[in-house]
Amino acid sequence: MKKEFEVIAGGITTPKGFKAATLRAGIKESRKRDDLTLLFSDTPAAVAGTFTTNRIKAAPVKLCERHLIWGQGQALLINAGNANACTGEQGFHDAERMAEITAETLGIAKNLVFVCSTGTIGIPLPMPRIESNLPALARKLSRENSSQAAEAILTTDLVKKEVAVTVMVDGIPVTIAGIAKGSGMIAPNMATMLAFITTDAAVDQRSLQLELVHAVDLSFNRIVVDGDESTNDTVLMFANGTAGNKLLDRKHHDWRRFCHALEYVTRELALMIVKDGEGATKFVTVHVTGAASRHDARACARAIAMSPLVKTAWNGGDPNWGRIMAALGYSGARIQEERVDISFNDLPAVQSGKAADSGSLAELARIYALKEFTIKVELHVGKSEFTVYTCDLSKEYVAINAEYMT
Amino acid sequence: MKKEFEVIAGGITTPKGFKAATLRAGIKESRKRDDLTLLFSDTPAAVAGTFTTNRIKAAPVKLCERHLIWGQGQALLINAGNANACTGEQGFHDAERMAEITAETLGIAKNLVFVCSTGTIGIPLPMPRIESNLPALARKLSRENSSQAAEAILTTDLVKKEVAVTVMVDGIPVTIAGIAKGSGMIAPNMATMLAFITTDAAVDQRSLQLELVHAVDLSFNRIVVDGDESTNDTVLMFANGTAGNKLLDRKHHDWRRFCHALEYVTRELALMIVKDGEGATKFVTVHVTGAASRHDARACARAIAMSPLVKTAWNGGDPNWGRIMAALGYSGARIQEERVDISFNDLPAVQSGKAADSGSLAELARIYALKEFTIKVELHVGKSEFTVYTCDLSKEYVAINAEYMT
Repeated sequence: MKKEFEVIAGGITTPKGFKAATLRAGIKESRKRDDLTLLFSDTPAAVAGTFTTNRIKAAPVKLCERHLIWGQGQALLINAGNANACTGEQGFHDAERMAEITAETLGIAKNLVFVCSTGTIGIPLPMPRIESNLPALARKLSRENSSQAAEAILTTDLVKKEVAVTVMVDGIPVTIAGIAKGSGMIAPNMATMLAFITTDAAVDQRSLQLELVHAVDLSFNRIVVDGDESTNDTVLMFANGTAGNKLLDRKHHDWRRFCHALEYVTRELALMIVKDGEGATKFVTVHVTGAASRHDARACARAIAMSPLVKTAWNGGDPNWGRIMAALGYSGARIQEERVDISFNDLPAVQSGKAADSGSLAELARIYALKEFTIKVELHVGKSEFTVYTCDLSKEYVAINAEYMT
Repeated sequence: MKKEFEVIAGGITTPKGFKAATLRAGIKESRKRDDLTLLFSDTPAAVAGTFTTNRIKAAPVKLCERHLIWGQGQALLINAGNANACTGEQGFHDAERMAEITAETLGIAKNLVFVCSTGTIGIPLPMPRIESNLPALARKLSRENSSQAAEAILTTDLVKKEVAVTVMVDGIPVTIAGIAKGSGMIAPNMATMLAFITTDAAVDQRSLQLELVHAVDLSFNRIVVDGDESTNDTVLMFANGTAGNKLLDRKHHDWRRFCHALEYVTRELALMIVKDGEGATKFVTVHVTGAASRHDARACARAIAMSPLVKTAWNGGDPNWGRIMAALGYSGARIQEERVDISFNDLPAVQSGKAADSGSLAELARIYALKEFTIKVELHVGKSEFTVYTCDLSKEYVAINAEYMT
């Protein structure tokens, strides 16, 4: 079977018509790397976005939500070191001012500019440092700065996260690429998971928005590091049409192929975030099937992925399935104890709610000793399923988050 | 003002007519201390109880729920080292058998016997060890074994938990006493918070049941160690009437006084559990006021108390109020960011959703450096409130739970 898309080396400026620039503006004194990133499209692009469901939203999230109404964008300014969250009216003025000065510098309309912030909560942005550095930042815009952009948006992340694919649309190769940051669902005081995706495909904005929500639901909404949800979480996608394809929408014969490529990009970025989870030593897939509803399946998977007791058992390699049973029981989902089956990498641990006949603790322990494994839970009460990707809870997680100082 | 009740030295057999016994039956090989505890009342007592809301309930919980229908009890058999949870039909037969042999040995009706287990999940009880030791256990029953009982029900707890008070009813002193175990909401693989309360007061069973539910709601339901809820949580109270007072019920003129004394006992036991939380180094009271509903107030307090990011900040002494704001935002409660006030021990940290004018980070850090402090959150959207008692999340918690082996 011919592959639907091809993974290539590259990043956020690999799709045609995109440029990036980064520099160190000194937003947070202690940060020694670049902290200001500008992404620019040569032409206005269709924009899609999804944002945190936290009721306390950072100012830049509010601004992005407003600008998204127009469905178009041409520039994105991102700062690290300061979240511009819980900063009141002044915070919103600052986010607006960031868009304004970016628009002035680039000579484009203000509502074509999107703004993201990540870093400490509750401290006003050092606006003069951003304003004074913007002209120099704009002058540095280049197709060569993909990796620099992927680096400059990071906070406590250990590795940069970027991925690029090409997919044929109307017989023309189009490229989709993305970068992301995040290593706790909230990194320590950094309050953010961010992902930015570019494509040179021409895509109908409404179709793009619906598909992005779907792709995010299959990826970023299925990862759990610590269960905390940030005030700044943002995913933004820009489609500038430079590749020259016929406008993609849900009726286009290459639509599914394009969607699968996009879903690959978002999924890869999401998995990179979990694998780089704060203090993580294990990557665990939790797959719940046979639930009475999708809501129940999700509740079970999240209860397991968020339980400190389950996560510490993974960390210590103790094949303690009782903690998983207890998490299922308090998840709120409809459960019948005597129907529950649990397996670790297909090795039965629990059958009909009791210790499986096969699968000694020693054999189960060998699976928990692996760096990556899958916990499969079959509830046998319905037909719904859900999968969550998560990591263990280590002493290192506590160290990172306890010893970090505001 | 005259004190309503008096705190005295003593434990579970301090109220008249109660005896206890403990011994080591070897339920779990690696456990070196007593693991079997028997509590006996000279006369049948009114019994009240509350149990885990986890949908996966251990066999002894199911048995207690059945026996509680009769409202009377005279004996309680408790084993540590094995939870008798996720043990299927055999587990329920074993719980029934525990009640049966206890009844036979003591010469009382089987439905007057209650049974509790705490320990490893998923392993059948070693019934021969329990059966063969029961006669010796019954022979050891004595009023002198209060402390031994408080010790023998412990698992990973560092300290025993017992409290006793006297309160005047009809001009007669009656005594209420309790013991408890639990150091995670689930201790590592030990799956249980247990509390047992005795009184020599004569109390109407229905009134006692209603008041016990209320007292538990004010105490054990307000503590959070790790947020995991066990399959075995049980609170049982026995009132044997030996003191000779006129039957207490809600119309009795000393009813409120008796209730306050009982609420003191349950609250003290609950606070002892938090202070002995696995790896805990700080005791934190989270007090949420001004919520739109009690449900919202509880959701906010629990979100704060369960957030790994907030708990690690307490551990490290980082006065990072942004993490508290983020937890409020994802709690599901109705929040208006610009109305939120937060203080640490009355020192303002957040005013109207932003950093308070007073309360520098250095001053706030001095409060986080204390062993005990209060986080007060005023939402200014309603009149409901809720308080939760909790502890920090330390590297030691991870060590205890990761390195413990099934």
